[in-house]
Amino acid sequence: MAPLVEVLALPKGTPEYEKLRQSILDEFWAGVPESLYLPESLIKDPPRNVTAVPRECGLLTPEEIDITENYDAVALAEAIATKKFTAAAVAQAFSKRAIIAHQLTSCLVEWFPEEALARAKELDEHLEKTGRTVGPLHGVPISVKEHMPIKGHCTALGFLDTRNISQEDCHMISILRAAGAVFYVKTNQPQAIMHLESASPLGRVLNPHNINLSAGGSTGGEAALLAMRGSVLGIGTDIGGSIRGPAAFCGIYGYKATSYSLPQRDFLIGGVAAELNILASTGPMGHTLRDMDLFVSVLKAAQPHLEDPALIPIPWSGTRTELPAARRLKVGFMFHDGQIVPQPPVIRALEWAKSQLEARPELFEVKAFAPWGAKEAVQNIRKAYWPDGGKGVREHLAATGEPMFPLTEWIVKDATSDVGVAGLLDMRVKRDIFRQKFVAHWNAQDVDVLICPAFVGPACEHETAFHWNYTALWNYVDYPGVVFPTPIKTGNKDEEEGYRAEYQTVLSEHDEHVRELWAKGNFEGAPIDLQIVTRKYHDNQLFGALEKLKGALQLA
Amino acid sequence: MAPLVEVLALPKGTPEYEKLRQSILDEFWAGVPESLYLPESLIKDPPRNVTAVPRECGLLTPEEIDITENYDAVALAEAIATKKFTAAAVAQAFSKRAIIAHQLTSCLVEWFPEEALARAKELDEHLEKTGRTVGPLHGVPISVKEHMPIKGHCTALGFLDTRNISQEDCHMISILRAAGAVFYVKTNQPQAIMHLESASPLGRVLNPHNINLSAGGSTGGEAALLAMRGSVLGIGTDIGGSIRGPAAFCGIYGYKATSYSLPQRDFLIGGVAAELNILASTGPMGHTLRDMDLFVSVLKAAQPHLEDPALIPIPWSGTRTELPAARRLKVGFMFHDGQIVPQPPVIRALEWAKSQLEARPELFEVKAFAPWGAKEAVQNIRKAYWPDGGKGVREHLAATGEPMFPLTEWIVKDATSDVGVAGLLDMRVKRDIFRQKFVAHWNAQDVDVLICPAFVGPACEHETAFHWNYTALWNYVDYPGVVFPTPIKTGNKDEEEGYRAEYQTVLSEHDEHVRELWAKGNFEGAPIDLQIVTRKYHDNQLFGALEKLKGALQLA
Repeated sequence: MAPLVEVLALPKGTPEYEKLRQSILDEFWAGVPESLYLPESLIKDPPRNVTAVPRECGLLTPEEIDITENYDAVALAEAIATKKFTAAAVAQAFSKRAIIAHQLTSCLVEWFPEEALARAKELDEHLEKTGRTVGPLHGVPISVKEHMPIKGHCTALGFLDTRNISQEDCHMISILRAAGAVFYVKTNQPQAIMHLESASPLGRVLNPHNINLSAGGSTGGEAALLAMRGSVLGIGTDIGGSIRGPAAFCGIYGYKATSYSLPQRDFLIGGVAAELNILASTGPMGHTLRDMDLFVSVLKAAQPHLEDPALIPIPWSGTRTELPAARRLKVGFMFHDGQIVPQPPVIRALEWAKSQLEARPELFEVKAFAPWGAKEAVQNIRKAYWPDGGKGVREHLAATGEPMFPLTEWIVKDATSDVGVAGLLDMRVKRDIFRQKFVAHWNAQDVDVLICPAFVGPACEHETAFHWNYTALWNYVDYPGVVFPTPIKTGNKDEEEGYRAEYQTVLSEHDEHVRELWAKGNFEGAPIDLQIVTRKYHDNQLFGALEKLKGALQLA
Repeated sequence: MAPLVEVLALPKGTPEYEKLRQSILDEFWAGVPESLYLPESLIKDPPRNVTAVPRECGLLTPEEIDITENYDAVALAEAIATKKFTAAAVAQAFSKRAIIAHQLTSCLVEWFPEEALARAKELDEHLEKTGRTVGPLHGVPISVKEHMPIKGHCTALGFLDTRNISQEDCHMISILRAAGAVFYVKTNQPQAIMHLESASPLGRVLNPHNINLSAGGSTGGEAALLAMRGSVLGIGTDIGGSIRGPAAFCGIYGYKATSYSLPQRDFLIGGVAAELNILASTGPMGHTLRDMDLFVSVLKAAQPHLEDPALIPIPWSGTRTELPAARRLKVGFMFHDGQIVPQPPVIRALEWAKSQLEARPELFEVKAFAPWGAKEAVQNIRKAYWPDGGKGVREHLAATGEPMFPLTEWIVKDATSDVGVAGLLDMRVKRDIFRQKFVAHWNAQDVDVLICPAFVGPACEHETAFHWNYTALWNYVDYPGVVFPTPIKTGNKDEEEGYRAEYQTVLSEHDEHVRELWAKGNFEGAPIDLQIVTRKYHDNQLFGALEKLKGALQLA
């Protein structure tokens, strides 16, 4: 029996599908030595918060605990380059911790420690022989979302019928590999890669801080693995919140770049119709701001635009970006989007951040940012995701007898039919007009960056990530965004306050729904991230602002 | 009777359409004083080359001739700023010359000298009063293609039913106006704005160098007006060659920027389905390289990306762009695209350019550039223009009884039906794969810039601009390109050579067609432009290269 914590069963499919599913899972577990199994008692009766299990379970050495807990990617690269740790020791530590994390959270879909170790040993030999690293990521393990091709490993596009072995690394992976990165896992993503949770045929990803909550999605495997410190740096994609949502649910960093900033060739082989109007973005997930910056620096240094002409060759200055020196940074705060009041801990985090900035008036001009356009953006983007009326989804499901998961039903339900060429053009025109109006609003608000919620609440209970408002708006306008951890955590049911007086007015039926979910749920231990966004293509300015905000917001 | 040279009648439509058409033309001519009419004898029996008529017809004063013939936009701006000329005198000179040009070439659709003069006088007063210009284009007249909205003037999208009075300036016009530009005409474009010639219900644009030839299209009105020196600077759009084709036909400069580089909001209100996969670009047309640079500088200085988030904020360095100093500029030459051998004068121009560069081996490394992908690019882009199977075109025509022009039939004929969402996605994927392969080929050729034909021959005879190969390829990959004049001109039928021995092999049926057109036609006096292109988004590097090539290629 696979030692896997399960809190809510997955939907069942046809017998053929269940057989296929089981064979994939069997193959996975055949590669895991029983010596790395967690005790059955723990699996059957896990603590709500499983983040301490790797440290306490006895399967990791003190050095492995040190390697996985006390370094970010920048520090780890330095420790390997200066021979404090071998790349092999690092690969071993993260491989072990990843499989422990998986037993608690279902975060993986592939685990290949031997390949990682072999590559790490090559890197160690190279360093020994030449005295030089192969690149800035020499020996740094990087976890990879399932749909991103790594040569010799399984890639899938959100349905079992799409699983196949990749013949080549995709563009981003090839650059990271050349820079010294070590690959050791592929991580779980939801059906259709289109939920803000991560339940797939291969497992339901649990939130390490509270396994009764979702880890978010679609890059939920990454987020859970990172929160378990089974990874130091991971890669996500985001067309509606798929980096920012799970990063926020799990209390880590996530950066969604402006589209066509970072290499993503072959991330979605064969293409998706959504991208005719809404482009997917990519970006890193991790533990520190400087790791986010490192990741982008490495990619940009490879001049990926010379190989992929879709990429825009704006040079990266990141956290070194100089901001206008003569004036304070104008920081907008949007507490709600006019449609849904975020649940109380999110409001608390926003208030904390605002007060932190107000305490430094010499650096920051804090401004209220009026909500604008959220209702229209969410309505339009939900349709723009499925111009074919969801036909492709149904075909993929039918191919193996895969059941439609409830959150797949939720996300396709507004797409009632194939809109055709005229419908697509109408969507395009609406999108562009919205973007023009939105930027006019942004200009009128006169801010450099905006801080706002990352989600309607803390990490949600399983099968309840319905409302994409706080992330999808920024996909609809294609603005870059970073979610970052705050010191705020959600208390237990008894400790937690209700909605305060000034937030009693229900803004919409969605708002009412979110209030109900809050009243019914228990979100104990869920961390709160906030989101910071800025204009399209101003990714450098976003990182420049984050660097300036670092002290005030206690950013790692 | 309107004093208008006509060499080939336009197709006839329904009586209602002809009536509508005539009423628009009547309105146009009602605004033209008879004192500016050319003599009937000249109109009835014009010379083949009409470029000297404005100078010789007696309607322009010596100063008006000087203003219109001896200055580029940079020099004109300086002459106005230093009060050598008033803006009013300049507006008057270009207005007069434009209406003369129109009588000879049908280049205009609107002529509004009073408004121009009033604006020019305001500018003169401003300069008088403040001692300062309003901006770098203070008093410079700019001619504008019909589909670009200017407040209070008629905009049309290539069909009579789309004509309407614009309530606002479009984005680009508003920036140019604020910089001091004076608008005085709108220029003719073909039906559907999708021919490489410019026959519209309002007239057929003739080539000033030889009225039996086309001025090219779709920005043919601009090109003819500029070649007549009835404009010093014009604006085009290009989704298959619509800036570069007519500029080359008429022997002027034309620059098609990478898409989303320059403001074009509201250029195509309501959108066109082609842009779901092939973006239209914009750019200037004019007499000198520095004018091309000035135009872009003015637009970029306004930071248009802050108002239009679709625009990519790559700063403009243009002709000041520094190239790698340590090595020679690598210039590729592609004499033909593997599909169609260009007609002899084009080969001659390429040979001239190549020999000019080879004579300066300390500056240039001349390389052969192997043709790649033209057949597929042209096939794919022709379909991508009309994902709705041309339904929109037929609806616009039916609305007023407008006849389908022969070149409209030619360009829609491969689009047999509505391809739907799946078909559009297939087009997108094919396009992206082509672009990836094309850039790999480009990388293997190892050039900084490429010099190639701008068209399959010199300016073509009317109704024969069938083959878009040499421009549309660069739209399909979205590379920036500039066409520039060479000293080569086409001789008369007797002087002109045939295809030389090394070009006897017929490459395709299209090639055969082009050879037939050459054998039948007489292209006497047609100037030859060449095209220089480079990678997507490398517009600055393109202009840096042009600056370096200036001496060798005798660029104005």
